[in-house]
Amino acid sequence: MDFFFNAADDVVDDGLSGLARIAPVRISDRDSGMRLVVDREFDGQRVAVISGGGAGHEPSHAGLVGHGMLAAAIAGDLFTSPSVEAVLAAIREVTGPAGCLLVIKNYTGDRLNFGLAAERASREGYRVRSVIIADDVSLPDDVAARGLAGTVLVHKIAGHAAAAGADLDTVAEQAESVSQALVSIGLSLSSATLPGAAREPRAAELGLGIHNEPGVSEVDPSDAREAVRLALEPLLAEARQRHGGDAQWAVLINNLGGCSTQEMGVLTNEVLTQLPADQARIAIRPSPLMTSMNMHGFSITLLPSDETVAAALFSETAAIGWPGAAHIATPETFAPIESRDRQSGTGPRDAQVADRLRAATCALSAARHDLDDLDAAAGDGDTGTAFDRGAQAVCRALDADRLSTGDSALLAEEIGDLLAYDMGGSSGVLLSILFTATAAGLADGATLGEALTRGIARMQAYGGAAPGDRTMLDALMPAAEALSAGSIADAAAAARRGADATADMGHAGAGRAAYVRDEALAGVKDPGAEAVARVFEALGPVVTR
Amino acid sequence: MDFFFNAADDVVDDGLSGLARIAPVRISDRDSGMRLVVDREFDGQRVAVISGGGAGHEPSHAGLVGHGMLAAAIAGDLFTSPSVEAVLAAIREVTGPAGCLLVIKNYTGDRLNFGLAAERASREGYRVRSVIIADDVSLPDDVAARGLAGTVLVHKIAGHAAAAGADLDTVAEQAESVSQALVSIGLSLSSATLPGAAREPRAAELGLGIHNEPGVSEVDPSDAREAVRLALEPLLAEARQRHGGDAQWAVLINNLGGCSTQEMGVLTNEVLTQLPADQARIAIRPSPLMTSMNMHGFSITLLPSDETVAAALFSETAAIGWPGAAHIATPETFAPIESRDRQSGTGPRDAQVADRLRAATCALSAARHDLDDLDAAAGDGDTGTAFDRGAQAVCRALDADRLSTGDSALLAEEIGDLLAYDMGGSSGVLLSILFTATAAGLADGATLGEALTRGIARMQAYGGAAPGDRTMLDALMPAAEALSAGSIADAAAAARRGADATADMGHAGAGRAAYVRDEALAGVKDPGAEAVARVFEALGPVVTR
Repeated sequence: MDFFFNAADDVVDDGLSGLARIAPVRISDRDSGMRLVVDREFDGQRVAVISGGGAGHEPSHAGLVGHGMLAAAIAGDLFTSPSVEAVLAAIREVTGPAGCLLVIKNYTGDRLNFGLAAERASREGYRVRSVIIADDVSLPDDVAARGLAGTVLVHKIAGHAAAAGADLDTVAEQAESVSQALVSIGLSLSSATLPGAAREPRAAELGLGIHNEPGVSEVDPSDAREAVRLALEPLLAEARQRHGGDAQWAVLINNLGGCSTQEMGVLTNEVLTQLPADQARIAIRPSPLMTSMNMHGFSITLLPSDETVAAALFSETAAIGWPGAAHIATPETFAPIESRDRQSGTGPRDAQVADRLRAATCALSAARHDLDDLDAAAGDGDTGTAFDRGAQAVCRALDADRLSTGDSALLAEEIGDLLAYDMGGSSGVLLSILFTATAAGLADGATLGEALTRGIARMQAYGGAAPGDRTMLDALMPAAEALSAGSIADAAAAARRGADATADMGHAGAGRAAYVRDEALAGVKDPGAEAVARVFEALGPVVTR
Repeated sequence: MDFFFNAADDVVDDGLSGLARIAPVRISDRDSGMRLVVDREFDGQRVAVISGGGAGHEPSHAGLVGHGMLAAAIAGDLFTSPSVEAVLAAIREVTGPAGCLLVIKNYTGDRLNFGLAAERASREGYRVRSVIIADDVSLPDDVAARGLAGTVLVHKIAGHAAAAGADLDTVAEQAESVSQALVSIGLSLSSATLPGAAREPRAAELGLGIHNEPGVSEVDPSDAREAVRLALEPLLAEARQRHGGDAQWAVLINNLGGCSTQEMGVLTNEVLTQLPADQARIAIRPSPLMTSMNMHGFSITLLPSDETVAAALFSETAAIGWPGAAHIATPETFAPIESRDRQSGTGPRDAQVADRLRAATCALSAARHDLDDLDAAAGDGDTGTAFDRGAQAVCRALDADRLSTGDSALLAEEIGDLLAYDMGGSSGVLLSILFTATAAGLADGATLGEALTRGIARMQAYGGAAPGDRTMLDALMPAAEALSAGSIADAAAAARRGADATADMGHAGAGRAAYVRDEALAGVKDPGAEAVARVFEALGPVVTR
C-alpha cells in the first residue's frame, strides 16, 4: 500500500463520509449514485452558491460547503465531472426563491454537465446563473484557460456576498468580476497518483492542470527560489497587463497535494519575498485548497484586492476547508536578550572550600580511565573523559580565581554555568541543572543537604531517571540524605555504598545503558554513581551546619 | 530537486520568515543564532505558554504562536533541540509577572535544554513551571514514552487557560493533567526525508516517533481500514485502562506530513467509524499539526473530554497553525430529488410537424458515413455515428407516439431530454442545452427564431465556441438569423452557406479540432455544421409565423 485507502472506488465516498462526521453538512445517500454535499443550515432564503466537479481536488469542493461559502457541492468520480442529474439534484436540494449561482471550472465536462443542469433547472422554474472560472494563465491565447485554485476565491467572495443577503444578480456579477480578474499558475515536481496506481515519473512542469494534463513546459528549477520565479514571471506579466503595475494583491499559495508543511513555509517566504512588498497585501493561509491528489507542487493565484474582496476573504465561514486569510507584513524582528556576561567570582573567597573543591576535581581527573572503563560496558566509554572535562574547567576557574568560594549559593551557580558551557553533553547539562537548582535552594536559605535534595529533584524531573536505574542518582540521593542528617563524611560513606550497589542493579531504566542486555552489566558499577562517590570522598570532613 | 527548498541549512529560517509575513508574531534576528518566535500581542500580564524543540515538525511549534496558544516558540535545527540559551532568551522575551509554563516533549535533548533554561530563569527571578509530554503509548512500559502530536492539545488547553487569565499554578496543573491523560500512536508508510537527502525505503511501521526513530513493529496493512485498526487497538487498550471504558474522547488525527487531503479524508472516516460512536465527541480538524517532514503517515491522539477541555478546544486562537475543532456527528444523509419521471408526449400532436421531424432524422441517419468521414480529418471519425444515435432516439419516440409535436416548447424540451440521455457524449449534452434553452424561449412566447437564438447563446456559453471556430455554430447562427427574418427554407439556405464556409476556416478554436494542424483541415467542412445544414434542408418549407 502506498496510499491510505480502502478501494479505489471508495476513496471519494469514504472522504465524504468522513467530512459529514465533522462538517456542518448533509450528504446524499451513498447508494443514490450521486455525491451531493449541502450546507445543513442553508434555508434557501439567500442565494445558493453551488460548485463541484470531478473529485480528487479536496478540500474542493465538498470541504468548502458551509455558511459563508458554498450552499452545495457536487462531486464526480476522481477527475471526472459529475452527471447532469447530480448537478440538477443539488440545485433542487438547496435553491429557494433567492436563486442559485453555479461556479464552474472551465473544463468541457463540467461546463456541459453544469450547463445542461442549469438550463433544465431554469425550465423547472429555478433562478439560475452561472460563472465559468478560467484563471490559468499558462496556456497560449487561443486555447481555453483552465480553472485552477482561483476558483476557491470565487466561492469565498460569492459565498460571502450571498450570506450577506445580496441578490442573485449582485452575487453573480461579483463572481463574474472576480473570475475575470483572477490569474493563477501551477508548478509541480510530479504528477498526481490515482489510488492503487504507480506514480508515473515525470519531469517538473510549469503551467500544469489539476488532472495530470501535461504542463506547458518542462522546467528544472535548482531551488525553491527559482521554482517560484518561474511561476511568478508569467503570472505577474499577465496580472500587470490586466490590472496595471500597481494593483494591490490578495495572494493564494495552494498546495497541490504533496508539499510538506516545511516546503509550504519555504514557498510562502519565496512568493512573498519576490512579490513587490507594497503590492502583496493579503495572503490566504497556505494550505491545500484545490489539490490534484498527491501532486507534489503548488499553484499561485493573484487577485486584485479592494475593500469588498478583503472583507469577503477575512469573513468567517463554517466551511472546514477554508484556512483563513492574513494581512501580509514585513517580518518584525528582534534581538534576543542573551545571557548577561556572567561575572563569575563576584562573591567572597574561602580558601578551605577552594582546597576541597580542588581536591574533588583532582580526584575526578584521576578517575578518568576507571570511569571510562566502567562506561565501556554499557556505553561508549567516555564518562570519565566527560567528567574530567568538567573537572578541568572548574580547576581552571580556581586557578584564575574566578569562583566565589566564600558564598555557597554563588559558587554552585558558577559551577553550574561552567559545566553547561565547558563540560557539555547530556551529563554537563544534567549536572548544570543540579548545581543551578541547588544554588537556588542555597540562595533561599536552605541547608546544603536540603538544597542538594532540591537540585536532585530538578535533575530527576528533567533527566527522567529514578533511583535504582543505575545512574548517578543512586549515589547522589543517599549522599544528600546523609548530608541533611550529618556530615560530608557521612555523605561520602552513603555515596560510596550507593555507588557500589549499582554493580548489582540488573537493569538500567534510563540513559543509554537502558538498551544494554542485563548480563553485560552484572558486577559493573555505574560510572556516574562512582564519580559522585569519588567527589564526596575527596570533599572530606567539612562540617556543613 | 525533489523537495522545495533553497539550501538544507535555510529550510527552518526560510519557513520562519514566511510565517512572520503572515502570522501575528515577531521573530529573532536571523543572525542571532537563535530561532525565537513570539506572539506580537503578548504583554506578559498573563501566563506565557512556551514550547519548542527541534524543527521539522511544522506547524509545531512556531505556527502555534498566537493569542490563545503559545506566547513563544523556540526552534532548533531540523530534528535537533534548541540550545539552553535560546530557550532562556525566549523566556526572557515574553515572561512577565504572571510567569511562564514550558511545554516540553519527552526527548532527552529537549528535557535537558529546556530544563536547564528553566532553572536558570528561576535563578533570574522568573516564575517558571514545566510540563513534559509523553503521549506515545507504543513503547514498552520500561522505556520512556515520547512526545507526539498530543503536545499540541496541551498548547491549546494551557494557552486557552492562560488567555483567560488563569494563574501559573492553575495553567500548569491543567497542562499536567492533560499531559497525563493524553494517548497517541503513529503509523507511517515511509520515513521522513531531510531536504536534499534521498528517501530511505522503509517498511510501514507502527508506533514510530517523529524523528525517523524506528517504529515498534513493522506492519503491512492491506488498506486504510486495517491501518487504522492497527493503530487504534493499542491506543484504545491503553486509553481504556487509564480512563475506563466509557470516556468521552476528543480525537486528533494528525497528518505526519505526506498524506494527501484525500487520504486524510479516508483516514478520518475510518477512525471515526471504528471509534465507538457514543464516545468520540470532538475532532480536531484533520491537518498536519505535529509533522515529521514529509513522512507519509498519521498519528491518532485521544484525550478524555470534559467541559473544560471542550471549551478550550473550541476557543478562538490567533495561531495560524491551529485548524479548529468540530463536534463529531453521525453523517446526516438524504435522498436526492431526482428528475420526475418525464411524461414525454403529454402535449398535443401535429402530424405535419411529426413528418418534418421524421424527415430530418432520416436525413441525419443517411448522412452518418459522410459526417464520420468529415470528422476523420480532425477527430476520431464518430460525429456521424453520434448524430445518427440521436436521430434514431427521436425516431423511436415518434414511432411510439411519445413526442408532443403539436406544442413546440414541449417538443423542444422532450427532444432535449432524449438527446442528453440517448445520444450522450459532449455533442448530446450540447444539443440538449440548445433544445432545452430553446424550449424555455418558446415557453416564454418567443418566436422560433428568437428562441433558437437564445438556445444558441446558452450552448455557446457552456460550449465555449465562437463563430468561425469550425463548429455547428457556423451553420446554426446564420440559420437562426434567417429564421427570425424569414422561413425555414431561408434558414436552410443560410445553414448550407454557413456549413460550406467552414471548409475554408483555417483554424479550429474549440473542440478537439483545436489541436489539429490547419493544413489537415483545408477544404474539409466541419461535420457538426454539415449536420445542421442537412437537418434544416430536410425540415423544408414550414412557415413559422
